[in-house]
Amino acid sequence: MEKEERYALIIVDMQNDFVLPGSPASVAGAYKTIPKIREALDMFRKLRWPVFHVIREYRADGSDIEITRLRGFREEKPYCVPGTKGSEIVEELKPVPGEYRIVKNRFSGFMNTELDFMLRRLGIIQIAVCGTQYPNCIRTTIFDGVSHGYDVSLLTDATSAQTPEIAEANIRDIANIGVKCLTVAEFGKEVRG
Amino acid sequence: MEKEERYALIIVDMQNDFVLPGSPASVAGAYKTIPKIREALDMFRKLRWPVFHVIREYRADGSDIEITRLRGFREEKPYCVPGTKGSEIVEELKPVPGEYRIVKNRFSGFMNTELDFMLRRLGIIQIAVCGTQYPNCIRTTIFDGVSHGYDVSLLTDATSAQTPEIAEANIRDIANIGVKCLTVAEFGKEVRG
Repeated sequence: MEKEERYALIIVDMQNDFVLPGSPASVAGAYKTIPKIREALDMFRKLRWPVFHVIREYRADGSDIEITRLRGFREEKPYCVPGTKGSEIVEELKPVPGEYRIVKNRFSGFMNTELDFMLRRLGIIQIAVCGTQYPNCIRTTIFDGVSHGYDVSLLTDATSAQTPEIAEANIRDIANIGVKCLTVAEFGKEVRG
Repeated sequence: MEKEERYALIIVDMQNDFVLPGSPASVAGAYKTIPKIREALDMFRKLRWPVFHVIREYRADGSDIEITRLRGFREEKPYCVPGTKGSEIVEELKPVPGEYRIVKNRFSGFMNTELDFMLRRLGIIQIAVCGTQYPNCIRTTIFDGVSHGYDVSLLTDATSAQTPEIAEANIRDIANIGVKCLTVAEFGKEVRG
């Protein structure tokens, strides 16, 4: 496979606080996608293609959180605070040496991060996105990826939402802008020829 | 003093690797500005005005460094790598609880960081900038600050360059776009009335 045919894998927000059932900002569908994300991760590790773990962090005082989340964060339950167990990537998907951890402060993995710079340095023009959750961080990351000129694939069975209806509605919209929406198995066939 | 008259202090890149004589990316003028920066810091701490320590970090493999610095970083001496002593803020200027640490990956403190979001949340419209070094991170942070709509002051004796000539040439240009260029003492008189 030619160098320019490489993809980068972008795994979004698979942190304990979003993924573990009962966690402060749990996304109902996230936990059960872990095996499929791990399958994608193993594929990229085997191919030696770049992997980016894009995660969310907020300062404990809420000074950098979205205004719409500020009250809940301050008065109810903070989440994704650096140094806490909740902010860590789930055990099954922990980065290994050579994989990159990108901290984002808003929905999109491209907003105010070094993600685009690093993909460009690597010569990457194709990305495969998975993780959680469909309507927010996945969707904004995908739209920004397309806007930045990347050829984007969405790994549908490795991505989650609060309900299947929300997932489906988002997949429809994402497919409609020309993003390939594939299962991990379909993506594997695609890249292996 | 009314809330809207508050300033935020932005201290740029006062990390061991840039400041300590003999350090890998040492800026000749930086070390001797520590007392003046500390004076400004003490003023802001006393006034209980916000303080932002803006610093630089690069991944150890150089995957996120500016292309112009890549070869030197990889082949000679890496710097500002998280977890190293060199990446830490100099002892005299270490942040205290309530002060913010902003990590940047490029020259400007506003580029791909949460700085603008956090200043807005605090209602800040005036910033005072100091640190190192004039032609790069100071200058880009100031120009971006003005572009974002902030009323910017430069603390001239708390800011440094490799040579006095470089400092003067930059102060001239910065003053010419309407930024107030004041010593820490002059700034102190200004804000205390």
